[in-house]
Amino acid sequence: MYLDQPLRNFLNELASSSPVPGGGSVAALTGALGAGLVSMVACLTSGKEKYKDVQPQIEALLKQSEKLRSEMEGLIQKDVEVFSGLSAVYKMPKNTEAEKAARTEKMQEALKQACDVPLTIGIWSLEIAKLAKKAAEIGNTAAVSDAGVAVVLARACAQSAALNVKININSIKDDVYNQNTWSRMQDVLKQVDDLEKLVLGLTYQKIGK
Amino acid sequence: MYLDQPLRNFLNELASSSPVPGGGSVAALTGALGAGLVSMVACLTSGKEKYKDVQPQIEALLKQSEKLRSEMEGLIQKDVEVFSGLSAVYKMPKNTEAEKAARTEKMQEALKQACDVPLTIGIWSLEIAKLAKKAAEIGNTAAVSDAGVAVVLARACAQSAALNVKININSIKDDVYNQNTWSRMQDVLKQVDDLEKLVLGLTYQKIGK
Repeated sequence: MYLDQPLRNFLNELASSSPVPGGGSVAALTGALGAGLVSMVACLTSGKEKYKDVQPQIEALLKQSEKLRSEMEGLIQKDVEVFSGLSAVYKMPKNTEAEKAARTEKMQEALKQACDVPLTIGIWSLEIAKLAKKAAEIGNTAAVSDAGVAVVLARACAQSAALNVKININSIKDDVYNQNTWSRMQDVLKQVDDLEKLVLGLTYQKIGK
Repeated sequence: MYLDQPLRNFLNELASSSPVPGGGSVAALTGALGAGLVSMVACLTSGKEKYKDVQPQIEALLKQSEKLRSEMEGLIQKDVEVFSGLSAVYKMPKNTEAEKAARTEKMQEALKQACDVPLTIGIWSLEIAKLAKKAAEIGNTAAVSDAGVAVVLARACAQSAALNVKININSIKDDVYNQNTWSRMQDVLKQVDDLEKLVLGLTYQKIGK
């Protein structure tokens, strides 16, 4: 589990010729960092006299951001697993027609599994961007720049996820799946981009005060 | 050192009410992840027959991306150190006029040190974005999505750094320093944004092939 290893190991393995961890795991880690920053803003707001009116909302925010952080942490590893699954299929024999057909079928299944992971990462990144908006709106103003960083990371997570969805789609021979997946991903990208603009605007306004 | 601790610890401490690690360290980590992905693309290109014409450029690229990754890894910790320095100044006595004057002077020094770290992170993020462009242009096409993720992370790193520069500037009473710093940061943001658009365009074009 990458989570249990020193941060240095993750960075060293990323920078190596080893195919994992790659862009998919990095997308999930970026999302986990964004969710973590929302949690930090919530923790720095909770229990403060000045913010007592929003205490119930802050508690709900923290619960949601910690849930999303946990999901993203799991997806760092999940991306490595589906990649390993795909590599195993690549090594299947292809000497006879029957072997070739079996390999092709398994390959398509494995590719869809590999594509579903970044799609899920993308979908969660939108939820993190929404929580970053809430954190910027009602959280401790002294920590508003952290809410801004959170939305920037949510957007980077979505864009990174989209690249990984796209590269898988190119090998999947199921037009309906491909169209649905890419259209869902595009919708997420648009929404996260809009949220980033909105939240960054609000953040700079509050920092300027 | 955060680099020597499990990744899980970094995420847990980030999500807590502890002020460190915060947005500045996360900006540096995001930059390190971007540089690491450029290194990965370089490693997946190096020594391959198909890419033998660009071998010297790939070797130079890897050297530069590993240098930048190392700089960014150092800045994860550096941001925590300057924050601790700032916290120590906040605790200085302010009972007499002389104490108040000494505290104010030290505070301004510490704030500039705290501001210089995200500015440096921002400046390096631009260099990482330039390397991501090179990786997308000459690197192994099979890994082009990773070059795309690298530029997305460089842009997130720059935006996160800018938020941390801005929040420090607001407390610094040196208009010349503030103007120079913010103008430098704005210039970086503009260049990195342009590079992201360019490299993402190129990446999707190459994935589409």
